[in-house]
Amino acid sequence: MTHNPQILIDSLPEGKLTAENYRLAEAPMPVPGAGEVLVKTIAFAITAGTRAGLQGSASYAGAPATGVVMNGTGVGEVIESRADGFMVGDRVMGSTGWQAYANLPAKDLTKLDPTQDPVNYLGPLGVNGLTAYFGLLRVGQPASGETVMVSAAAGSVGHLVGQMAKIRGARVVGVCGSDQKGAVLRERLGFDATVNYRDPNYRQALKEATPDGVDVYFDNTGGAVLGSALFRMNVGGRVACCGVVSQYDTDSPEPSPKGVPGLLVNKRITMRGFLVFDFADEYPAARQDIAGWLANGSLIALTDEVQGLEAAPAAFVDLLAGGNLGTRIVRLD
Amino acid sequence: MTHNPQILIDSLPEGKLTAENYRLAEAPMPVPGAGEVLVKTIAFAITAGTRAGLQGSASYAGAPATGVVMNGTGVGEVIESRADGFMVGDRVMGSTGWQAYANLPAKDLTKLDPTQDPVNYLGPLGVNGLTAYFGLLRVGQPASGETVMVSAAAGSVGHLVGQMAKIRGARVVGVCGSDQKGAVLRERLGFDATVNYRDPNYRQALKEATPDGVDVYFDNTGGAVLGSALFRMNVGGRVACCGVVSQYDTDSPEPSPKGVPGLLVNKRITMRGFLVFDFADEYPAARQDIAGWLANGSLIALTDEVQGLEAAPAAFVDLLAGGNLGTRIVRLD
Repeated sequence: MTHNPQILIDSLPEGKLTAENYRLAEAPMPVPGAGEVLVKTIAFAITAGTRAGLQGSASYAGAPATGVVMNGTGVGEVIESRADGFMVGDRVMGSTGWQAYANLPAKDLTKLDPTQDPVNYLGPLGVNGLTAYFGLLRVGQPASGETVMVSAAAGSVGHLVGQMAKIRGARVVGVCGSDQKGAVLRERLGFDATVNYRDPNYRQALKEATPDGVDVYFDNTGGAVLGSALFRMNVGGRVACCGVVSQYDTDSPEPSPKGVPGLLVNKRITMRGFLVFDFADEYPAARQDIAGWLANGSLIALTDEVQGLEAAPAAFVDLLAGGNLGTRIVRLD
Repeated sequence: MTHNPQILIDSLPEGKLTAENYRLAEAPMPVPGAGEVLVKTIAFAITAGTRAGLQGSASYAGAPATGVVMNGTGVGEVIESRADGFMVGDRVMGSTGWQAYANLPAKDLTKLDPTQDPVNYLGPLGVNGLTAYFGLLRVGQPASGETVMVSAAAGSVGHLVGQMAKIRGARVVGVCGSDQKGAVLRERLGFDATVNYRDPNYRQALKEATPDGVDVYFDNTGGAVLGSALFRMNVGGRVACCGVVSQYDTDSPEPSPKGVPGLLVNKRITMRGFLVFDFADEYPAARQDIAGWLANGSLIALTDEVQGLEAAPAAFVDLLAGGNLGTRIVRLD
């Protein structure tokens, strides 16, 4: 291999993202400099949050640009190292982007536990799992017996949030976009109830699914589903604001939900936005908890895999339309 | 006196409240039963929050009703007591409503420190002062050197919030509805800067008044001013949601501010609604702090008084239009 196949952002989306916003290209094989490591990508994850980086609005992902490799977190194998502590054959996680090979500063890489399936680091042991963990347990803080509601419940973060809430003894209600997804969440992952936000009777169904109200709402979507949650919140409820997937794939976002701040006052609700990176010091301890849950079967990682770099753009478009069940992963060989 | 003059809610407002929504009436002088105390009202406070109780929407104030005495907190003197611990001549605070005499359960009364001006219990030592205290110090939690922004800054709660923030070593920026109010806040109460939300260049003026962004926003208004604050918040900022005065006096409230929840995520903002009643156990300790600040001159209570029961309806309408500077009080003798 002397060339590096990669997917570039060819144009910024106007309105909805399409696969044509990307193009396949080949770059020369990168050569690591001092402190750098050349990684052969095994797989990368596609997550809705990266859509925000393609939009002109304020985002922690920085300003959008074209002609660059699409960003994303991947796992891979070290094939050349010019950094202490990394050897050929080590498995690592980092910002590989959508490309076959990535040349990365060693300081930005996480070495993987060789006893774990590396793909777990794109799901429960990676950013998705850590986001679920800190957002639920630190921001939401559910007590045993409380009701936890989570949106995008079949998504890469949501399906883990619901299971972690069950581990903490909560009653779990998931909101997702199809009855089939709901059935998987209830039957395979132990969710107590699910509600389909596309159901015309969604509001009533949510009410019936939350007879004791909602104590913790883990918000992956913003928009109308956030609005529906605020109306179901109990006094003293907590909203962990994780993402706004309903607002990413558009250039005309919905208005903010009704009841802000009126309902927050009347029901003494706390809404707190968070980014997982703020908890970086605590990743090792969190991974230990999560690995334990994976080992004892109380946490199941759902993955939804596609094969090959060229499949990534369509897989992203489909994800933004709610096509995935669990973490969407692109495998490169 | 054998009759009890009082102001009744005659009709519920459609759109804006008017003085014609009230009427003056006379009831028989009430006779206290066991455990009750008859209080002669000295003065009562008019606060924007009671407007919510006249609207059909969800409110902690309960469902609206007509033909009843308008509610409000007052101070008065005990003229007859059938309850242990209360004697004729004691001064008390309670839900007198807008009437000359109130017959109240002793358990709902607070006995006043006879060394304090009773009117202070309608301002800094009463619900307004306690709301400022707990909302700022417990919910907002400003650190020394941080920037605190407060809306309705010349109002009964806001003018105390700003001064308490100064006591805590913060830089204080007040938002109010006239340049004249702003001058009083800066010159008499020590606010570092004020911004007039009616200024067509309000957004730019707010930006200039908050060169280091905003760490704590004490929100009395909701609506557009809340929206402007969210855009100025720093990472890790806190919003204490106290009230939505911009939304009370209308039956077609503004949409919620933009950026919820997107800005909350990007800037890891916490928005928390609170009601002062949730801190009732801690009122005595808070009053001790506040009385100390009043005594040493670091806290100045602004009052804006009108005379006589019949003046109350127009004084309320004017308050909702932003006519008050400090706590609006109706004196009955």
